[in-house]
Amino acid sequence: METNQPKIKAAILGATGMVGQRFVQLLSNHPWFEISALTGSDRSAGRKYSDACYWRQEGDMPAAVRDMQVLPAVPPVNAGVVFSALPADIARDVEPEFARAGYIVCSNSSAYRYEDDMPVMIPEINAEHLALLDSQKKKRGWDGLIVTSPNCTTSGAVFPLKVLNEIFGLEKVFLVSMQAVSGAGYPGMPYLAIADNVVPLIEGEEKKLELEPRLLLGKMNGRERISAPMSISAQANRVAISDGHTICLSVKLSKSASLEEVKAALLSYAWPEEIKQLPSAPLQPMIYREEADRPQPRLDRNAGGGMAVSIGRLRPCPILDFRLVAVVHNTLRGAASGSVLNAELLKARGFLG
Amino acid sequence: METNQPKIKAAILGATGMVGQRFVQLLSNHPWFEISALTGSDRSAGRKYSDACYWRQEGDMPAAVRDMQVLPAVPPVNAGVVFSALPADIARDVEPEFARAGYIVCSNSSAYRYEDDMPVMIPEINAEHLALLDSQKKKRGWDGLIVTSPNCTTSGAVFPLKVLNEIFGLEKVFLVSMQAVSGAGYPGMPYLAIADNVVPLIEGEEKKLELEPRLLLGKMNGRERISAPMSISAQANRVAISDGHTICLSVKLSKSASLEEVKAALLSYAWPEEIKQLPSAPLQPMIYREEADRPQPRLDRNAGGGMAVSIGRLRPCPILDFRLVAVVHNTLRGAASGSVLNAELLKARGFLG
Amino acid sequence: METNQPKIKAAILGATGMVGQRFVQLLSNHPWFEISALTGSDRSAGRKYSDACYWRQEGDMPAAVRDMQVLPAVPPVNAGVVFSALPADIARDVEPEFARAGYIVCSNSSAYRYEDDMPVMIPEINAEHLALLDSQKKKRGWDGLIVTSPNCTTSGAVFPLKVLNEIFGLEKVFLVSMQAVSGAGYPGMPYLAIADNVVPLIEGEEKKLELEPRLLLGKMNGRERISAPMSISAQANRVAISDGHTICLSVKLSKSASLEEVKAALLSYAWPEEIKQLPSAPLQPMIYREEADRPQPRLDRNAGGGMAVSIGRLRPCPILDFRLVAVVHNTLRGAASGSVLNAELLKARGFLG
Amino acid sequence: METNQPKIKAAILGATGMVGQRFVQLLSNHPWFEISALTGSDRSAGRKYSDACYWRQEGDMPAAVRDMQVLPAVPPVNAGVVFSALPADIARDVEPEFARAGYIVCSNSSAYRYEDDMPVMIPEINAEHLALLDSQKKKRGWDGLIVTSPNCTTSGAVFPLKVLNEIFGLEKVFLVSMQAVSGAGYPGMPYLAIADNVVPLIEGEEKKLELEPRLLLGKMNGRERISAPMSISAQANRVAISDGHTICLSVKLSKSASLEEVKAALLSYAWPEEIKQLPSAPLQPMIYREEADRPQPRLDRNAGGGMAVSIGRLRPCPILDFRLVAVVHNTLRGAASGSVLNAELLKARGFLG
Repeated sequence: METNQPKIKAAILGATGMVGQRFVQLLSNHPWFEISALTGSDRSAGRKYSDACYWRQEGDMPAAVRDMQVLPAVPPVNAGVVFSALPADIARDVEPEFARAGYIVCSNSSAYRYEDDMPVMIPEINAEHLALLDSQKKKRGWDGLIVTSPNCTTSGAVFPLKVLNEIFGLEKVFLVSMQAVSGAGYPGMPYLAIADNVVPLIEGEEKKLELEPRLLLGKMNGRERISAPMSISAQANRVAISDGHTICLSVKLSKSASLEEVKAALLSYAWPEEIKQLPSAPLQPMIYREEADRPQPRLDRNAGGGMAVSIGRLRPCPILDFRLVAVVHNTLRGAASGSVLNAELLKARGFLG
Repeated sequence: METNQPKIKAAILGATGMVGQRFVQLLSNHPWFEISALTGSDRSAGRKYSDACYWRQEGDMPAAVRDMQVLPAVPPVNAGVVFSALPADIARDVEPEFARAGYIVCSNSSAYRYEDDMPVMIPEINAEHLALLDSQKKKRGWDGLIVTSPNCTTSGAVFPLKVLNEIFGLEKVFLVSMQAVSGAGYPGMPYLAIADNVVPLIEGEEKKLELEPRLLLGKMNGRERISAPMSISAQANRVAISDGHTICLSVKLSKSASLEEVKAALLSYAWPEEIKQLPSAPLQPMIYREEADRPQPRLDRNAGGGMAVSIGRLRPCPILDFRLVAVVHNTLRGAASGSVLNAELLKARGFLG
Repeated sequence: METNQPKIKAAILGATGMVGQRFVQLLSNHPWFEISALTGSDRSAGRKYSDACYWRQEGDMPAAVRDMQVLPAVPPVNAGVVFSALPADIARDVEPEFARAGYIVCSNSSAYRYEDDMPVMIPEINAEHLALLDSQKKKRGWDGLIVTSPNCTTSGAVFPLKVLNEIFGLEKVFLVSMQAVSGAGYPGMPYLAIADNVVPLIEGEEKKLELEPRLLLGKMNGRERISAPMSISAQANRVAISDGHTICLSVKLSKSASLEEVKAALLSYAWPEEIKQLPSAPLQPMIYREEADRPQPRLDRNAGGGMAVSIGRLRPCPILDFRLVAVVHNTLRGAASGSVLNAELLKARGFLG
Repeated sequence: METNQPKIKAAILGATGMVGQRFVQLLSNHPWFEISALTGSDRSAGRKYSDACYWRQEGDMPAAVRDMQVLPAVPPVNAGVVFSALPADIARDVEPEFARAGYIVCSNSSAYRYEDDMPVMIPEINAEHLALLDSQKKKRGWDGLIVTSPNCTTSGAVFPLKVLNEIFGLEKVFLVSMQAVSGAGYPGMPYLAIADNVVPLIEGEEKKLELEPRLLLGKMNGRERISAPMSISAQANRVAISDGHTICLSVKLSKSASLEEVKAALLSYAWPEEIKQLPSAPLQPMIYREEADRPQPRLDRNAGGGMAVSIGRLRPCPILDFRLVAVVHNTLRGAASGSVLNAELLKARGFLG
């Protein structure tokens, strides 16, 4: 991208919440995008962003957005790309309005994530699923489009699963997550409910985790996505930690492989060069930690600016084939940064501007 | 037991540590036992207990032990039963000395837990394994004996596994634990290492968890114990919580069964009446929580005075048959109280006094 | 009180919240009172208590209340005493309705705490303030009455202040509190707002702490209460802890005194014998910890069943005279148990039944 | 400083501990300094740094130091400046050896902090105290010198105190701190000792806090430092937080002043321009937060890259004159970064290279 090109204007839907604030933070110094519009709920619309929003990120609210007026979440907005941090029930109505009105929507919500014509996108994993957008256009008749990001835990688990599926074939995946409190947005769980505790239920999460990796690892058959045929069992737990999801995995492979072969595959996988060129992409999307007690969310969640997934503890499984542990930053790779990277891919592929 | 019978004198080995203090707390008002001797390391021996020990339990150190002199951990001691809270490497030498000298040792350490002639005992689960003591006597030539308790996580997991194994047969068990910091004793993990973190390694723990349930659920063949034939895959994590281990389980049964049948079995299992009579035994050793988000360690760890295991979230597993969650108090049922209950069983069966 | 006397029926206003649940817990096995009515908000009224209330206390909801129907908070209720766990804005309207209708209201709210005719009562501190009830009756014309409890932090600070004021005279009190999250009720602070954090503001708290001790330590002049003339500077902080407020105090005395004299006074103060006879009163209302690093909320909050205030670290102050630290259980002595003790005092003095 | 000048070689004493690792992190991309030597204890000396040190900072250990051999802490080392992260008892012997051998030692320890000829330095506060180095040279006869940093809590408190003292005069300071666990280095407090707790004692801390601000705010009389004449009362508490100390202050001024005047002074104070030019100095050394509930350590500790002190909640005090709250990052401004800034001042003033 030439440096003297003007930046693409970006609107953020749901800009006052936790993920919305992350979008503001990420786009404030973005080389390709600049914030042009912020929307909020009825309670926020019409107020200055600095009045409507209690800033909960480290560092101050960027000066450029302090005085922007929060708009209602309806088109038109002055934007070449729209980032949605809306909750699923609101996104259900609002995102299609923007797509219909011709906007490119990069959504972080689950509202449309499971539709056949909807890419659930992580650029390093399944950029070829952009072909679904043709089906989307045909089926919906929109001038714009929607690209979605997966659930935060999926965003971590799918990196090692991608490698294992591609090199050895994946038949079964056993997954137990220990998820950070920020995964539920703000306010999320009361201190009294989660401090000194583990809550072994995250409403609706297990269904998502048993479905989404199969979508992301699916193969395109023309403009149709064929879900990967593996079976997944997921158990999701909330633990007392601010950011960073930890995922215990056990997998059964299609081909027999030694631990050394599996480790070599995880270490040497060639992630697509095209994606590494995108501004938000980490040099190494997946990092194998050799220490016996890693990855750990506190030490590893910010690897690659919060965009690298850290894995480790590869070892045999007495029931399936191999076990390992993954850590992902749930509000960066698993949420806002993931959507920004999707927008960057769309730009690079000519969908934007 | 007649109430006018004199109490049995009890020695506590390793009395100044975390589990040792729990023993002191539990035995201070025990109807059958009374503390007669406390041992400690070279650094503690010779000092008053109140000087040698920083009391970290809620409530004050019991007055009766404050002025007791801490002894070195060598026989003879004035005791009819010996509780061992020693670390495994020290227990390895010290416990047999006491057994050889004729003492009944109820051990919380793992030093001898995996020997063929050694009961790993939870009275509600495998009281019939006391028959191993005949083999022990024959093999070791001791005048006394050692009975061990299982690992704290095993102590929780084995309750639902017992029921499932007995009613339906268990073929495979997938287990992921989220374990409290107190499981490692005091000082255990630094705040800076575990706060706002998950550590996906507990040295040596997974091997224990893959072996111990098979011992506890083993059948006696005469005086020999035949390990239960199931396969177990265990992943152990440390989380930022004080007390209470949470265990995600997935199981494959030998017989096909509906969710209703499995739930009915867990709810209606007839735990042995003999054990319920023991002073430290809970009325209900296992409690099924119907709430969708239970069991939780903060709310359920103290059920039955810390002796009841709470389970819940029974649901199908896409890979094996059923999934559920268990919570156990790791320093009560999973440590000191478990050993006291073992001693009570020995008393009831006539091994003591 | 004779043991064959029937128990006094007790209603709990605001029974589903945090303090309300504590009242339920405390009154479920009370020797003098028995729960006869539970009230809740419009959302709860008409439902079974077990449906209207997510029980957040350790141990199960007492069986006797599970099926009680939650009532709206309006008289009449079937009760000889009414405990109010209402928030201040609702208490403002509801408590007088009950008092007017003839009920004895023991309130935990701040709604009427600062009125001239209203006892702010801790039985060990200022039982003689019950004389204010004559003024209250005259001024309000109620058939019933209201007795209030102080703020949770006041409930701790006032114990050492009482002794110092009575023996040496108090001129100035400097107070900085570190308060537990449960002080704000449920849900209270989000985990994301207070974990790994200190919040140096508790709305309205400092004003309360600068006023209430002066009321509690006030002298009666006939039926009028003369506020104690000391000046108080209070700074209140919220810290990441579940239960137990810690209070750093520095005081200037009217009489000069040595550290030994002050310590002796704190250790030997003769708390009123009448109060020690009440069922919820601790044997020792204030405990001096000799350890250099005590009191600590985790270790000391439950002293005396959560009713004893622990103090320690008495040392000179380079600016005023002496410094010390106090710890109080904010939801027991500082809230529900405090109100129950007030009711017990009213019973003992013949106001009830 | 010209950019083509070679970097000054820097040795880090005590490089494997918490503060030592911070030095490594800070100096790895420093524009003026480059790491040339790392020392450690007998246990570490001779090993590769990556073997001797468990890296506990976010992000990986810098590649350039991984293979450096850890040296014993004895001169000579290849260095133009020496940073000391040694514990006080070891620093007591080692730092003078280096100073005697001609090295410029920037020390983070308290070993020599209280000697008359020793600058306790924060460049924005008391750069003129460098004049003490003449006295030091004369008194000690060293070829090198030692400059020390103050205690971490002092490092925060002294910023607002500096302004108040200079503009209005300070007579009395009341200070209560709530200090992060990292202040005690690694391992520091066990999780079981500080989680869900407050510990109202930090050994030796209160004495430091009652002395150090008087040194830092002292006036030079020729080559002699006259301690500021204010009296200070300090109470130090440990709270369950990773990084960031919070300090409640109350002050008595020499001149009478309105709240508006005091606030204006805090907002408009002209910090020395010379210091702002130093690479590690923040643009704004002190930030006044207008929000009612700020500063908070989680949100404010990283202001100015961890080098800016955040203050707020200025309000009248019923006993002294004004109260306010300060937050400082204890391992950056309050430790390693503070010493690096001292070295930068020494370089700018011509003491180095």
